[in-house]
Amino acid sequence: MSNLDNTTGIVLTTGYRLSFVCSVLRSAPPCSKFFSVKHTADVQYSINPPRSEADHLSPIPLNDDTVLLFSMKKASEEENDNKLSVRYYGTDKKMLGTAVLHLTAVEISLDVDADRDGIVEKNNPNKGCWKWGPDGHGAIILVNCDSERRWRKLDHEQDFIDRESDLKDMTTMVLRTKGPAKLPEGYKLTMHISQGDAESIRVYTSADGAVGRKCDLCFSSFQPRHRYPLILQSACLSAEVLYRRGFAENKFYVEGIRFPDKDFDGLVTINLSLLEPIGPGIPETPIFTDKVVLRIAPWIMTPNTLTPKEVFVCSTTDNYTFLKEIRSFVAKSGHNLKICHEYMNRGDRWMQDEVEFGYIDSPHQRFPVVLDSPRDRGLVDFPYEKLLGPDFGYVTKKAQKEDVNSLDSFGNLEVSPPVTVNGKKYPLGRIIIGVAFPTAAQGRNMTQVIQDFLWAQKVQEPIALFSDWLCIGHVDEFMTFVPAPDKNGFRLLLASPDAGYKLFKSLSKQGHGNATLFDGRLIGVETETPRPVDDILNDEELQDHNNYVQSCIDWNRDVLKRELGLDEGDIIDLPILFKLVKEDEEVRALAYYPDVVNMLVLGKNLGIPKPFGPKVNGRCAIEAEVCSLLEPLGLSCTFIDNFASYHQLLGEVHCGSNVRREPFDFKWWNMEM
Amino acid sequence: MSNLDNTTGIVLTTGYRLSFVCSVLRSAPPCSKFFSVKHTADVQYSINPPRSEADHLSPIPLNDDTVLLFSMKKASEEENDNKLSVRYYGTDKKMLGTAVLHLTAVEISLDVDADRDGIVEKNNPNKGCWKWGPDGHGAIILVNCDSERRWRKLDHEQDFIDRESDLKDMTTMVLRTKGPAKLPEGYKLTMHISQGDAESIRVYTSADGAVGRKCDLCFSSFQPRHRYPLILQSACLSAEVLYRRGFAENKFYVEGIRFPDKDFDGLVTINLSLLEPIGPGIPETPIFTDKVVLRIAPWIMTPNTLTPKEVFVCSTTDNYTFLKEIRSFVAKSGHNLKICHEYMNRGDRWMQDEVEFGYIDSPHQRFPVVLDSPRDRGLVDFPYEKLLGPDFGYVTKKAQKEDVNSLDSFGNLEVSPPVTVNGKKYPLGRIIIGVAFPTAAQGRNMTQVIQDFLWAQKVQEPIALFSDWLCIGHVDEFMTFVPAPDKNGFRLLLASPDAGYKLFKSLSKQGHGNATLFDGRLIGVETETPRPVDDILNDEELQDHNNYVQSCIDWNRDVLKRELGLDEGDIIDLPILFKLVKEDEEVRALAYYPDVVNMLVLGKNLGIPKPFGPKVNGRCAIEAEVCSLLEPLGLSCTFIDNFASYHQLLGEVHCGSNVRREPFDFKWWNMEM
Repeated sequence: MSNLDNTTGIVLTTGYRLSFVCSVLRSAPPCSKFFSVKHTADVQYSINPPRSEADHLSPIPLNDDTVLLFSMKKASEEENDNKLSVRYYGTDKKMLGTAVLHLTAVEISLDVDADRDGIVEKNNPNKGCWKWGPDGHGAIILVNCDSERRWRKLDHEQDFIDRESDLKDMTTMVLRTKGPAKLPEGYKLTMHISQGDAESIRVYTSADGAVGRKCDLCFSSFQPRHRYPLILQSACLSAEVLYRRGFAENKFYVEGIRFPDKDFDGLVTINLSLLEPIGPGIPETPIFTDKVVLRIAPWIMTPNTLTPKEVFVCSTTDNYTFLKEIRSFVAKSGHNLKICHEYMNRGDRWMQDEVEFGYIDSPHQRFPVVLDSPRDRGLVDFPYEKLLGPDFGYVTKKAQKEDVNSLDSFGNLEVSPPVTVNGKKYPLGRIIIGVAFPTAAQGRNMTQVIQDFLWAQKVQEPIALFSDWLCIGHVDEFMTFVPAPDKNGFRLLLASPDAGYKLFKSLSKQGHGNATLFDGRLIGVETETPRPVDDILNDEELQDHNNYVQSCIDWNRDVLKRELGLDEGDIIDLPILFKLVKEDEEVRALAYYPDVVNMLVLGKNLGIPKPFGPKVNGRCAIEAEVCSLLEPLGLSCTFIDNFASYHQLLGEVHCGSNVRREPFDFKWWNMEM
Repeated sequence: MSNLDNTTGIVLTTGYRLSFVCSVLRSAPPCSKFFSVKHTADVQYSINPPRSEADHLSPIPLNDDTVLLFSMKKASEEENDNKLSVRYYGTDKKMLGTAVLHLTAVEISLDVDADRDGIVEKNNPNKGCWKWGPDGHGAIILVNCDSERRWRKLDHEQDFIDRESDLKDMTTMVLRTKGPAKLPEGYKLTMHISQGDAESIRVYTSADGAVGRKCDLCFSSFQPRHRYPLILQSACLSAEVLYRRGFAENKFYVEGIRFPDKDFDGLVTINLSLLEPIGPGIPETPIFTDKVVLRIAPWIMTPNTLTPKEVFVCSTTDNYTFLKEIRSFVAKSGHNLKICHEYMNRGDRWMQDEVEFGYIDSPHQRFPVVLDSPRDRGLVDFPYEKLLGPDFGYVTKKAQKEDVNSLDSFGNLEVSPPVTVNGKKYPLGRIIIGVAFPTAAQGRNMTQVIQDFLWAQKVQEPIALFSDWLCIGHVDEFMTFVPAPDKNGFRLLLASPDAGYKLFKSLSKQGHGNATLFDGRLIGVETETPRPVDDILNDEELQDHNNYVQSCIDWNRDVLKRELGLDEGDIIDLPILFKLVKEDEEVRALAYYPDVVNMLVLGKNLGIPKPFGPKVNGRCAIEAEVCSLLEPLGLSCTFIDNFASYHQLLGEVHCGSNVRREPFDFKWWNMEM
């Protein structure tokens, strides 16, 4: 009897190393017909193809395809503290030799919060894939798009961590190891990501968890000169990480650096490998790989039905009266008003158009994020200078100047309240944008980079409406949502020339045909001089214009009903007339009098453009009609004079304001996709 | 009693025009409290909010929110042949007036083969969305990537149809209209697509179905100067189409012009709108829109288990013997051999590497499509010049020359037979490519444009293996699939240094230690001089090299088991030794003797590189071992001498051949995604 083989090996308690297995039976001396297995207490094995129970007891027949699979029950406390030996026997069951394998077991797992409870659990079986829904799994990363320093620089624009507070914006990842004091000579652990994923994330660790050697590729950052050295990034896709003795936990911090977009579905994978040395001059080879899959959190918009946190408006040289009325309305509603002053807005009063407020959310952190429009007029610097800050993120999409037009202003970007459409749930609502109707030979569209970004967020699947029929071309010129106590919890308000004509005809028939629109306004424009109701009703050209507008709105009404699962009872038509004007050979629409649908919604309080409609018994008939439509829902209407300072500049209250709202209670990762 | 309103309107029998509805009640005279409705036989109406049954009989109470929805049962035979009138009554039920609406009903549907049976059914309710699976729906488009003319030009590279035969590569779409002889004055039908979709499809019609006017944008093509004029393309997103009287069918032909890719999910939408004139100088407005959603068919690869159609090899100045043996092997297997001659291959013998054969499929047409690698060596012109033709398509992806390396050759692109993995079915198998293992500081990868293309096809979700450890770096150097009568219907064959050493050790122990490898070969390279078995077994450096190679293959074995749902019984290890060589500072592997796994699989006949292993009783022990492993599966092994003409140039039989195979019986659109 001879000692045929005497080798050492490393075993992962969370897996097994197959190659090693095969080499055990390779040791069989010629003429071996049977074998038996002996091992220390922590070793487990199985024979493949499986044998009957009885066969395990005595020498087992040895065939060409016999494979031994083995694993260990727990991690080793010292190197080579376990042993498995195979005895080989001839035809007469005479022992021919023994092969001995000395084993070291290590337990390694790369862990994340795959069950989304805010705690990094141990070796979740689902950590390696990502699934939506309440029974879903897979960890979440935030784009680190706020600024801990108010430095006019996003945190993810620098590749180092200089404030402890920045760690809470990152996803904690834990490398758990258990085993002897050190790995056998030459073995090492490496963490690695793909080139593609490195465009979307970085990985940091703590200085005492990094292996203090120079990285071949990114000399500077790999050194633990920082308290939290950067170990993985696009210039360095792989790094050695520390194996720690005993029940050790090595912490890593994953930073998101880009949002999901047309070319990025939001998923990234981080791998951990145990590398084995083979010999001098031969590359190391991976013998075990663990991986975690994470998703970058989408940017989420907030509909009018969510609680306001802050209301933003601009102060300009000519909007004092408007500001006073807004201030009073916001105060009455119990909310917080923020004024953007002229030095910052440079005379650009369209607060709605430059920014859209949203947020990002994860089980470990959540903060508001402003989407900055490529519109870039006077308010261009406001979001970066005044909004970006600690726990207030910023994102923008660059577009070619010539690709940007009025439809890229965010009065043309809204979001519905939560809806269910033919059984499909949209618990975060659906984004609504306006585009050209493609029957037009040429039309204006929201620029592609913004559309791509919005669609890529996935959780509020966008609806494209037809808004290019309007001069300004924003969806907020003909629609909004208000909260309601019944049905879906909201009503869709639509501008309606039909409702406008109906109101005016009824006024005429009630003998108020001489009451005038625009009464008492100081007006510069000819068509807006005070005008009697009957005069309007007799204006056939204006009726033609409004028939056209009604058709355009009706087309959108059909789309909204279909895409939001609404019926007629979910819609309220507000009396608004439009007029058509010719501009650059294109005939497009403007609100004829202040566009009451373009309102500021603060809970149940509505700040509505004062329409200056015909007065009946001293009260504006349009205001009365709007109140009669909305007050039964428990809503309170406040009419705000924006005639000279906004309406005549082709916008209204909504265009001139913006609201940051509370996030949804619903967690986006619980969506069923 | 007066005639309050007397208007005309158009009604779609497949929808209704809501705006019209509202205007009927707008006609109510002041003090109207009740109304009643009268109509001709084909008109149907409902009142919203709904009333009780009894209320319909007598004058119905009229409220502010009363809306009348109406539709027509069938198409009109003449303009205004139907009528709906509303009578209004005061408090005392005295009649106050009547509003009359003259109606024309048209039936319009844009139809495709949404149920995928090869026939364009009428107004399929699911035509507007696309769903995978046997209970799925949605029509299919092929990329028109063959050439009807053998002109060295793909059909989709020209924007006109000059051969009737080209129509069968397109998807037929039918516009079905029913109604009066013509639409009311000023109404028209337009078909339109989005700018994005126009990058992926074109729409043609027949000359007598196009409206013969100049398009504003694309003057030339819109004219019906061709028999099948082009009506929609990127320069012209919208076109007027003919309304035909009676039960008319207007045919359209949709041509796919690009495959799904990273930035294109394969889905396109074609819209049809009925436009209504409002008045002079006012844009027309859509009052009805129908749409169909179609998917571009993916490119599909064919695994070794499918029946061969044609075998391709190159003829070079020095491969006469090889050609002779291949010719005999292919003839014996009953298949068709195609020789690519030297004037075309310019000395490039690696037929496997320049092209990958696949196909595209739809319910109406199917043909093979060759994917041309960006490798572009001597065989660069072969696929375009010799394969492209009628019903033989061509696709390639352009890459920057500096981004292309050996891993872009299609020996590094294979596909598994159908598998089921943890319950998830891959009825078309999974694509397999080789890439760098990212623990390497730098590595070679398949170029991104090819990877993006392969992933975007979706139906054969790719698996990335680690192949950069090989000098040439192709997955076909260490793995292949062969058919088997049991289990999954195939076995995965893996190169195995362990199996090689086991064989050699057993030879030595049986007293054949002096038998030599490479016996009788004319060899130029020092390491390949005839070498005794014992000499190989005593070469510790070679053992180290092979331990490393075994580790690399084992890592891939784990990935393949996991991603293809295989167990050990699905895998056969073939005895192959490798050696490591240093090249550009990188240590990488080459097969030490002809790499028997790199075989040509033609049904049950395997054309295997002749290994020139040690002879025992006059028979090569490696051949004997390979036969003993494969013959029990009913496979027949033919060993082909490719030593000088391929092996010494770092390739083998598989690298030097290619096979076009029968498509799958399984239809890709029946996949559950």
